[in-house]
Amino acid sequence: MKVNGKHYRSIWFNHDSGHDTGHVQIIDQRWLPHEFRVVDLTNREAFVTAIRDMWVRGAPLIGATAAYGMAVQMALDPSDLSIEETHEILHSTRPTAINLRWALDDMRAHLAPLPVAKRAAAALARAAEICDEDVECNRQIGLHGLEIIKEIAAGKPKGEPVRILTHCNAGWLATVDWGTATSPIYHAMEAQIPLHVWVDETRPRNQGAQLTAWEMVSHNVPHSLIVDNAGGHLMQHGQVDLVIVGTDRTTANGDVCNKIGTYLKALAAHDNGVPFYVALPSPTIDWSVRDGLTMIPIEERDGHEVTHVQGKLADGTVTRVQISPDGTGAGNPAFDVTPARLVTGLITERGICAASAEGLGAMFSERANF
Amino acid sequence: MKVNGKHYRSIWFNHDSGHDTGHVQIIDQRWLPHEFRVVDLTNREAFVTAIRDMWVRGAPLIGATAAYGMAVQMALDPSDLSIEETHEILHSTRPTAINLRWALDDMRAHLAPLPVAKRAAAALARAAEICDEDVECNRQIGLHGLEIIKEIAAGKPKGEPVRILTHCNAGWLATVDWGTATSPIYHAMEAQIPLHVWVDETRPRNQGAQLTAWEMVSHNVPHSLIVDNAGGHLMQHGQVDLVIVGTDRTTANGDVCNKIGTYLKALAAHDNGVPFYVALPSPTIDWSVRDGLTMIPIEERDGHEVTHVQGKLADGTVTRVQISPDGTGAGNPAFDVTPARLVTGLITERGICAASAEGLGAMFSERANF
Repeated sequence: MKVNGKHYRSIWFNHDSGHDTGHVQIIDQRWLPHEFRVVDLTNREAFVTAIRDMWVRGAPLIGATAAYGMAVQMALDPSDLSIEETHEILHSTRPTAINLRWALDDMRAHLAPLPVAKRAAAALARAAEICDEDVECNRQIGLHGLEIIKEIAAGKPKGEPVRILTHCNAGWLATVDWGTATSPIYHAMEAQIPLHVWVDETRPRNQGAQLTAWEMVSHNVPHSLIVDNAGGHLMQHGQVDLVIVGTDRTTANGDVCNKIGTYLKALAAHDNGVPFYVALPSPTIDWSVRDGLTMIPIEERDGHEVTHVQGKLADGTVTRVQISPDGTGAGNPAFDVTPARLVTGLITERGICAASAEGLGAMFSERANF
Repeated sequence: MKVNGKHYRSIWFNHDSGHDTGHVQIIDQRWLPHEFRVVDLTNREAFVTAIRDMWVRGAPLIGATAAYGMAVQMALDPSDLSIEETHEILHSTRPTAINLRWALDDMRAHLAPLPVAKRAAAALARAAEICDEDVECNRQIGLHGLEIIKEIAAGKPKGEPVRILTHCNAGWLATVDWGTATSPIYHAMEAQIPLHVWVDETRPRNQGAQLTAWEMVSHNVPHSLIVDNAGGHLMQHGQVDLVIVGTDRTTANGDVCNKIGTYLKALAAHDNGVPFYVALPSPTIDWSVRDGLTMIPIEERDGHEVTHVQGKLADGTVTRVQISPDGTGAGNPAFDVTPARLVTGLITERGICAASAEGLGAMFSERANF
């Protein structure tokens, strides 16, 4: 999407970079929202660092980055051993990321049967395809979600904004472009539907304040930052027309595992009759799990994410401050599970379906044979 | 309660201060949790600054501070004009604080009929009484709340902690001692019931992380800091036995206006069958309001509280950092209303009652004639 009027993806191959073969560029997201830094990734070690140290994050973007990491390595050494080593090294950077394994397996399956001399070009082409497929998937999610926004807009006095609340960052920065939860928002902007986005700051890592708010500023989407505590109050007072969030994993029965606090917003939406939608590319559906609450293990992360906050000092320096007393420990569950009963619908690349085994089964009949 | 093993109130008159007449001391709460600073308030201007600039905060403590402010002024000038001026000047520091007006009205009613020569001593005595009354009120709340904790403890295997979640700071720092929501916790500590307190950090001002966590560290109460997003997940997984929060205003029908985010925790408690109690001294009941959601105006505070966070740098300096991009504005509703239907019970100084017109009416029959 746009940054200062210019269109960007979150990862791209720069053919005009001045290098012989061109190279891969990413946005180093660690400095957002305070600095917009584009960096070159020119060898395997750079890709390892970028994924492991979260210069890039978000499941789809991690997968795309790994694919390009394989491609860059193929230009340097297209041997069988190099494919295997690169698969292993890149996979170990974030071993639980499902898209990472998927992208690396896909690249290996494409490259292994080819003659060594053809692998470099083929790898680059396939990595670009993986990115384009992600963009197209999210574009479809946006078009389907746009219909929901259009319908709400049609029920309002002309010119009154549709007010959409979102949690964390399921934006274009987490994908290659469009994002998942944000794709309907960007499509509504293109359709010139008046919007106002409530951006949950999303403690502990503040990805709402740091990434979603930055996306909104950069693309000129009207928005307000709110604390994670505020959404219920806004819904009680009719200030939210629609909630759209992303998901890290959706179960076969429609339970939604997403950033901690999503469940609280779903409860408030349900209590106030506000539609609560989850936007998801179908690869995030885990067809093997039928009860999110008991079957999805929730990652407990470092307590420093809770006791400390990153931000910018008055002089522009980006640093961390400690908000709690010395001696206080923290609990830090990273995700929660929103039961399907609280979800109005799932926005997938194929269309919108009910958050239920029946709804998902009808939409993805080829996968639902369990 | 205790700070490093020594008992403190949040305000006290130090007879052994070395001054001729003794003087009032407070904890300058702006520096908590990073520094424990006790300061002297020796003249009216110091009291104005302390209340206006939030060196002290919390409705009961603000009232007690104003009472002592009047007493200190009476030692300097006990005239009628001085009483009126002091009432006006102190009241203007935080004009919407209901306890502030109550304490100043009370002091004036006590002092005005007295001979000028007797006012200084009488004012000091009455201010001390107001403090003692607050302590006793909160002590009673604690004793009643203790019964709830005892009952939960009795249903657990011996030695397993009762896990209590609280939001914001309804602690002794907001009152003269004991606190409201924390009083049952401190009483349970004295009764040697094993406890674990989940402390919501309570954005935007982080009073949970800064004040409640500091109280818990200082008094050796086992606790964990959590983000405001985490409580629902903990309740889903049986990690919370009880929620106790405070309140800024409770309506005659039992709706509870409290720090933003309280409603979300009440929804989660209700969804998971976790008891949700509100601790309140009866003066915070507003008998004139019967529908909290439509009749209580919610203060919208400065957006900088959302876009910026105060904390301590690695070198110990306390400062603020900006968490959001330049160009992002914030919405900042300070309170929300939890409907009575989500409240298990109200813990008052007289006992525990249902959050309903009937429950409150039976407990406070002298006030409920409307």
